[in-house]
Amino acid sequence: MRRAKISIIGAGNVGSTTAHWCAAAELGDIVLVDIPGDFADMPRGKALDLMQASPVMGYDSSITGTNDYADTAGSDVVVVTAGIPRKPGMSRDDLLGTNAKIMGSVCEQIKATSPDAIVIVVSNPLDAMVQRAHQVTGFPAQRVLGQAGVLDTARYRTFLAMELGVSVEDVSALLMGGHGDTMVPLASCTSVGGIPVSQLIKADRLEEIIDRTRKGGAEIVGLLKTGSAYYAPAAATAQMVEAIVRDKKRLIPCAAYCDKEYGVGGFYVGVPVVLGSAGVERIVELELTDSEQAGFQKSVDAVQELVEVMAGLV
Amino acid sequence: MRRAKISIIGAGNVGSTTAHWCAAAELGDIVLVDIPGDFADMPRGKALDLMQASPVMGYDSSITGTNDYADTAGSDVVVVTAGIPRKPGMSRDDLLGTNAKIMGSVCEQIKATSPDAIVIVVSNPLDAMVQRAHQVTGFPAQRVLGQAGVLDTARYRTFLAMELGVSVEDVSALLMGGHGDTMVPLASCTSVGGIPVSQLIKADRLEEIIDRTRKGGAEIVGLLKTGSAYYAPAAATAQMVEAIVRDKKRLIPCAAYCDKEYGVGGFYVGVPVVLGSAGVERIVELELTDSEQAGFQKSVDAVQELVEVMAGLV
Amino acid sequence: MRRAKISIIGAGNVGSTTAHWCAAAELGDIVLVDIPGDFADMPRGKALDLMQASPVMGYDSSITGTNDYADTAGSDVVVVTAGIPRKPGMSRDDLLGTNAKIMGSVCEQIKATSPDAIVIVVSNPLDAMVQRAHQVTGFPAQRVLGQAGVLDTARYRTFLAMELGVSVEDVSALLMGGHGDTMVPLASCTSVGGIPVSQLIKADRLEEIIDRTRKGGAEIVGLLKTGSAYYAPAAATAQMVEAIVRDKKRLIPCAAYCDKEYGVGGFYVGVPVVLGSAGVERIVELELTDSEQAGFQKSVDAVQELVEVMAGLV
Amino acid sequence: MRRAKISIIGAGNVGSTTAHWCAAAELGDIVLVDIPGDFADMPRGKALDLMQASPVMGYDSSITGTNDYADTAGSDVVVVTAGIPRKPGMSRDDLLGTNAKIMGSVCEQIKATSPDAIVIVVSNPLDAMVQRAHQVTGFPAQRVLGQAGVLDTARYRTFLAMELGVSVEDVSALLMGGHGDTMVPLASCTSVGGIPVSQLIKADRLEEIIDRTRKGGAEIVGLLKTGSAYYAPAAATAQMVEAIVRDKKRLIPCAAYCDKEYGVGGFYVGVPVVLGSAGVERIVELELTDSEQAGFQKSVDAVQELVEVMAGLV
Repeated sequence: MRRAKISIIGAGNVGSTTAHWCAAAELGDIVLVDIPGDFADMPRGKALDLMQASPVMGYDSSITGTNDYADTAGSDVVVVTAGIPRKPGMSRDDLLGTNAKIMGSVCEQIKATSPDAIVIVVSNPLDAMVQRAHQVTGFPAQRVLGQAGVLDTARYRTFLAMELGVSVEDVSALLMGGHGDTMVPLASCTSVGGIPVSQLIKADRLEEIIDRTRKGGAEIVGLLKTGSAYYAPAAATAQMVEAIVRDKKRLIPCAAYCDKEYGVGGFYVGVPVVLGSAGVERIVELELTDSEQAGFQKSVDAVQELVEVMAGLV
Repeated sequence: MRRAKISIIGAGNVGSTTAHWCAAAELGDIVLVDIPGDFADMPRGKALDLMQASPVMGYDSSITGTNDYADTAGSDVVVVTAGIPRKPGMSRDDLLGTNAKIMGSVCEQIKATSPDAIVIVVSNPLDAMVQRAHQVTGFPAQRVLGQAGVLDTARYRTFLAMELGVSVEDVSALLMGGHGDTMVPLASCTSVGGIPVSQLIKADRLEEIIDRTRKGGAEIVGLLKTGSAYYAPAAATAQMVEAIVRDKKRLIPCAAYCDKEYGVGGFYVGVPVVLGSAGVERIVELELTDSEQAGFQKSVDAVQELVEVMAGLV
Repeated sequence: MRRAKISIIGAGNVGSTTAHWCAAAELGDIVLVDIPGDFADMPRGKALDLMQASPVMGYDSSITGTNDYADTAGSDVVVVTAGIPRKPGMSRDDLLGTNAKIMGSVCEQIKATSPDAIVIVVSNPLDAMVQRAHQVTGFPAQRVLGQAGVLDTARYRTFLAMELGVSVEDVSALLMGGHGDTMVPLASCTSVGGIPVSQLIKADRLEEIIDRTRKGGAEIVGLLKTGSAYYAPAAATAQMVEAIVRDKKRLIPCAAYCDKEYGVGGFYVGVPVVLGSAGVERIVELELTDSEQAGFQKSVDAVQELVEVMAGLV
Repeated sequence: MRRAKISIIGAGNVGSTTAHWCAAAELGDIVLVDIPGDFADMPRGKALDLMQASPVMGYDSSITGTNDYADTAGSDVVVVTAGIPRKPGMSRDDLLGTNAKIMGSVCEQIKATSPDAIVIVVSNPLDAMVQRAHQVTGFPAQRVLGQAGVLDTARYRTFLAMELGVSVEDVSALLMGGHGDTMVPLASCTSVGGIPVSQLIKADRLEEIIDRTRKGGAEIVGLLKTGSAYYAPAAATAQMVEAIVRDKKRLIPCAAYCDKEYGVGGFYVGVPVVLGSAGVERIVELELTDSEQAGFQKSVDAVQELVEVMAGLV
């Protein structure tokens, strides 16, 4: 069998750390792409450095850096981390417009060079960027999805494991809706060793943990000062890549295109999906409580507004 | 740091496959013990064969076979798989008496050579054998425990993953009570990707899956004809060894000594515990529904009866 | 990407332990095949048992047991472990004739159901059986190969690591020629942490270690008494499967079809090859010393004689 | 057993990526230390981010960030990556003096808080810094060592694997002497699948590969422009940590204190060692050719001069 080909657009910390996790798990051959210019060789440098770690760690992956999408041709999976971070004084719409243009130009390239790829979007604002990727590539919705829920869930699971003093392996959870502020925690979908969290942690304490999760990205930014999180976002992305290239049928939350599902009406929003070699193979529809439904609708409304604003900017 | 020392008493399929899983995960140095006699060299043969797999698989473990408990001295963990299987025409009490004697003699040796070890009992009938190990070693209860719940749960998770077509990694469950017939499934403690199973599988179909789980050991015996399961039992045991030697604080079901907990009154029964370097570090007490409580009590009663019968046989 | 499909013919200890190593490394979906009859369900039992270990160990592999080659259709790799062991009083030619017939019937089935597969032969006598597999399938020579050298080398590396008290990961070696008695050790191709073994172990002691390696299979048989080695043979086989399904381009010794190479003239013999997704992608030709060349020729002669005898038996 | 405690001084790219590799391999609990000041929270941010990757990747490690050595107390291993990089216009002696002072203050703290630790120095200039660490801690020489040879060897192995189109797992090599310019390649200690490299690559081409290896660090700096390599240096360091906490007895090149060995006379220089739970458990003395001996002596002379200059600066 040939190895999977995984291209990662954007060789910043999230992109290169995603390459790190994917290479270490021998998920396939990796192409790191970034723009030409003064730092054109940077992806080549990171790729070579990662290759030089391989004899020590025992993985065989071809990892290359490039500025040319031709090198990504025929990718099985393309991860898009490209985009600028929000800078002080920049309005939300400035960020949205700039990143929508970057996403558009990246996706034109993907469409031309890897027409059968599955595209995982990591760029922010996530729910709008993945919609844009879907629009520009014109790929079937199941082959375009966004990473958000696995990361939020990972933070939540970490905090729960810390709280209870147990292995992170034994904490299961599911978060729906948007990334961050509009995240919708599902009390009934959180368990530890199978045990519903409500039997283990009091409601008000759980609320504090959920709140910390909601602000998880900002907490890291506040500590690092010069950048944002990359280890956990990259791990979450690598897990999605693995689910696809190993056809694992993971049941995890992703930003997926929902039309009739949950009555969303044609937007990307965080929902539980089955992720396998065909991309989003199934969207799992849950019964939501009234307050969960209200929170979810708020997420959908926020996405819809963002997408409409974006439409006027590109 | 010195490596952990793991001794496995009984070098049959379950014992040697436990060695296989432990070695492959580089959990420590392993001593495989079996009785002298015509096949005295068998543990040496299996140990050497496993050592010879190590350059290929890249693990460093010293694996030795022996008939002498002196070689197990100072073990951190001792796994006991010794005991005879039930043969046609053998009464339950014959089996119980024979295995209780074997367990007694094994535990005298453990007590003498590895006084600080944590003992994991795998021999059948499990709940009686682990009680016997506790009695004979005189070790604190948290250092003597039995493997049953992880295996039952693993079978249940496998069947659920098959049913739903999703990754086994995303299925969480917890089973309490006895092994097999007196197993107590907790409907509220089964989830897939965090989602309560009741949202994914209809009640009557779930009941069928639980029933298949309950009879999971017999199903394998029926297929193999010449023996019983060993891959999954050994994997379950190795996971417990890992939780101890890596101090993982796994929240998993084990046969643990319960006195006030769940009102058991001094018997071993399957309950959720936190398993770490000190052994059973915590027993987690859940609220049970009336029917779960009734099922659990039935398990406790069965264990109590078995222990009383055993008392008259040794 | 779809998962690799790996079929294993013969569900005895070597076959099922190969399934164990392959599943644990998530190399693909596995089909275990054995003959119908009284123990027809045995492969189903072992497969189910291995599946039930998967939630604990975190691998997603579909593992099935069957008596029907139709279930192996479209395999990427087929491992053949089928054949009877040599019994007391059985002549070499009896064994050869019986196993050649078994191999023939197995290979007819492989040819019919998996015409694009790469076939790894493990059955004994190895060098004859792999020639037979090549003849019957009619597959190109690079898609039919035999496992022998990785196992012999693994044993040798284990003994060298024990002798020097160093990690097995740091011992490299290459053995050519036949399996066991006619094995040809290459003094210049053995190193520890890169250091030629001649700088670390005296010649006469090294000779003893080589001799123990040569008799490595018999040593295990002598200890087990009721069977032969399976952990290391299965690990060696799984490494070859991995090299193929992950396209690793491993440079390892295999029984490969040599015509002009080494002047062999159309027989299978142990030589260093590059093993990747196309099977034997390259045979590496070394300069041999006179005595190595003589030893190698002795191996080739032995294979040739075996193949000629076999021709008269099928 | 308690988990190993691994402290990493310096939370820059090399330090935090070392934490990444160590955590992913579940080698122990990790403390990331950096200096107070404007970015005092940075190690806390990276540690938390790495923790949040753990549920996804399935490792249990406590990873904490701090500015206080009290949090490192009782470490089993301390990795020192602290030090400034050489800036344009900075003389070698300025760099040496500054980093020697940093190393001195770090080692005073290690001595006070982790008196039984094994110290792995990664800071540059390596051979001087590790000597300084030995002087200031006053620890026995076998508990203070430097990382250089594993990285150089990893680069060399990578280039060889690329050249031959084979798996990195099959390339073995050993480099002695200093890091970079004064590196001493040993032609006789390089092999591929056990085969001496001289049978596979022509001498002049091999010389080019060695030359590229020698300049391997500069190549990455030239590509990245804004920093130096960290993936492979961190992987090399993590392998040394693993060798110690898992007591693997790896035979690998490290900067070790040689007195009578190789006639060095009391300096740190790159030599093959056996690395296990006691640190440098053995220095392996090889027979060198005249030219290798000359190259090695040049390395030793360079180290000696550096150490003498350093003595005048602290």
